[in-house]
Amino acid sequence: MSSSNRIEKMKNILVKKDVDAILVSDEKNIYYFTEFPWGFRLLIPASGESILFVHSVNYEAAKEIAKNVRIDLIRINEKADVKIVSEISKLGFKSLGFDRISATEYLRIKDSLKDLRLEALDDAIWSLRKIKDEGEVALIKRAAELTSQGMKKALEIVRPGLREWEVAAEIEYEMRRLGSSGVAFDTIVCSGPESAFPHGGLGEREIKDGDIVIVDVGAKYRGYCADMTRTLIAGRMSEKQKNLCEIVAEAQRLAIDRIRAGVRAKEVDEVARKYIVENGYGEYFVHSLGHGIGLNVHEPPALGPMSEEILQTGNVVTVEPGIYIPRFGGVRIEDTLLVLEDKAERLTDERIS
Amino acid sequence: MSSSNRIEKMKNILVKKDVDAILVSDEKNIYYFTEFPWGFRLLIPASGESILFVHSVNYEAAKEIAKNVRIDLIRINEKADVKIVSEISKLGFKSLGFDRISATEYLRIKDSLKDLRLEALDDAIWSLRKIKDEGEVALIKRAAELTSQGMKKALEIVRPGLREWEVAAEIEYEMRRLGSSGVAFDTIVCSGPESAFPHGGLGEREIKDGDIVIVDVGAKYRGYCADMTRTLIAGRMSEKQKNLCEIVAEAQRLAIDRIRAGVRAKEVDEVARKYIVENGYGEYFVHSLGHGIGLNVHEPPALGPMSEEILQTGNVVTVEPGIYIPRFGGVRIEDTLLVLEDKAERLTDERIS
Repeated sequence: MSSSNRIEKMKNILVKKDVDAILVSDEKNIYYFTEFPWGFRLLIPASGESILFVHSVNYEAAKEIAKNVRIDLIRINEKADVKIVSEISKLGFKSLGFDRISATEYLRIKDSLKDLRLEALDDAIWSLRKIKDEGEVALIKRAAELTSQGMKKALEIVRPGLREWEVAAEIEYEMRRLGSSGVAFDTIVCSGPESAFPHGGLGEREIKDGDIVIVDVGAKYRGYCADMTRTLIAGRMSEKQKNLCEIVAEAQRLAIDRIRAGVRAKEVDEVARKYIVENGYGEYFVHSLGHGIGLNVHEPPALGPMSEEILQTGNVVTVEPGIYIPRFGGVRIEDTLLVLEDKAERLTDERIS
Repeated sequence: MSSSNRIEKMKNILVKKDVDAILVSDEKNIYYFTEFPWGFRLLIPASGESILFVHSVNYEAAKEIAKNVRIDLIRINEKADVKIVSEISKLGFKSLGFDRISATEYLRIKDSLKDLRLEALDDAIWSLRKIKDEGEVALIKRAAELTSQGMKKALEIVRPGLREWEVAAEIEYEMRRLGSSGVAFDTIVCSGPESAFPHGGLGEREIKDGDIVIVDVGAKYRGYCADMTRTLIAGRMSEKQKNLCEIVAEAQRLAIDRIRAGVRAKEVDEVARKYIVENGYGEYFVHSLGHGIGLNVHEPPALGPMSEEILQTGNVVTVEPGIYIPRFGGVRIEDTLLVLEDKAERLTDERIS
């Protein structure tokens, strides 16, 4: 089990940063460190045993699954926040890291433990999470295979007369039927003029002959996500549609070619953006080129003009250039890729298009 | 459109609390006030125009959908947080409410605008959101109907030999096919000893003859959630299984009978809990009786022993007593209900069981 390793790595960071412990609040971070999906809080000290706090509803499951931590039960008539603060106080920490706590919780801890130095360590956790280990890569690959199968289904069935959500229903069913644990995000099927909205509309439109249809879909497998987009035409493709599809496909190809460990993330964005600008559509590429993906659909490293990231072996990212012309429609093509030392390995199936 | 009303109500709260404006960060809160699902931040001043900040990826859609606010574009090369702080500063507010910002964002605003008084107003937004208006009730009713249809499907198909996720696949497909916009949460199908874990296991177990199977499912419709659980037996029911099911059903009936406006939420929990305790299973009812539901699956008002809420007309809540016996299995029955002046109206279909 690699989750114990991950806790060890976190402890090393705490030692290096001279912080006594970290209180982990984000459920996905807790899952990352314990393989338990319903933890309430996880306290990792720089040395010694980690404590997973769980509500009674999850206590039996936690005992079964979370083997690398001590489990502390929050009883049904206990105030969880009071208990956590009291445990932290008992352990006598002088400093405490935190990940994504709310302002309210931050203020509560600060007011209760006035001598405690609080330190934001979200980035430190991301420095671990954004480099996927072998086990994680295997799960994302499975999610990507399922996603590709869902997309294949979409390509088979999209036709005029179907409602957008009917297409989504078939895609999700195909992925689920093959073993997906759910969707990584609400499936986007958007057609006609609504395809100019990158996130789609209500998903209720009837697909018409000659419509652009953007399908953006992701399966989840044991918590891990994949993400894939294809742009189809329902019926005969116009010259303009064809031209847009070719530009976006080439922008994606150029960007993917640039990916390898050591490359600046913003440079990958720039390659695709430059190509789209040169073809006259720069103002219509209204989002970043891509994003990291793992337990979250969107996570570091971001591939955008403002990103300060340098790609590392083990990053998993999407590359998804797009052109969106108001009232006309949009085109987006997206794959999920693993960053290797000397190239990007495509995890979603490029042959599906 | 009722979202303008909602902003007016928020403004009244600001005036009453003597706070100049609120910075709304939670996407669902932003949706509540604007009907726009992908807002980045919404600034509602105590008087004057509200401003919706959106990233360029959502700008065109925001102009189409969010009619009751001014839309402010965050360009792709702008730092969103810097822009928000600068806008707040320009407007000269002396005090600013916030909903669910992270500790990091809170500290950033505090450090940048040292004279600004910051005030947590999450509860104030919940005081609005937990009372559903007519439009919201209609959407939740639709979600509940779709959920009931999904559950009906589950009852038809559950049998020994199926994997848990195969059942989930059929349920979700049925709901989607009928028009659901997605799932409110990952569908739980857990069988045999794993049904003793209220949130289930991996969802990969093969259902065996005589197994308890807990199915917990929720459709989403235009952002609004429903939630429903039934406990089935794959094959012949044992006496002990039957007894547990009867106790939980009666506990649910007693609790629902107690619901009406003006009743303390903890009292409703107590009615069900007392009955389960009297039947000797108190220690196995390891969670609260229920929760509010709307744009979030879990939201105020909570129906639990620690809840300070008093039920109000227009609350929508679940009632879901359960008994979970480690290594034996669990039973849970859940419906979604609308609180009325003198009773609870069931939104999920009680005839499905």
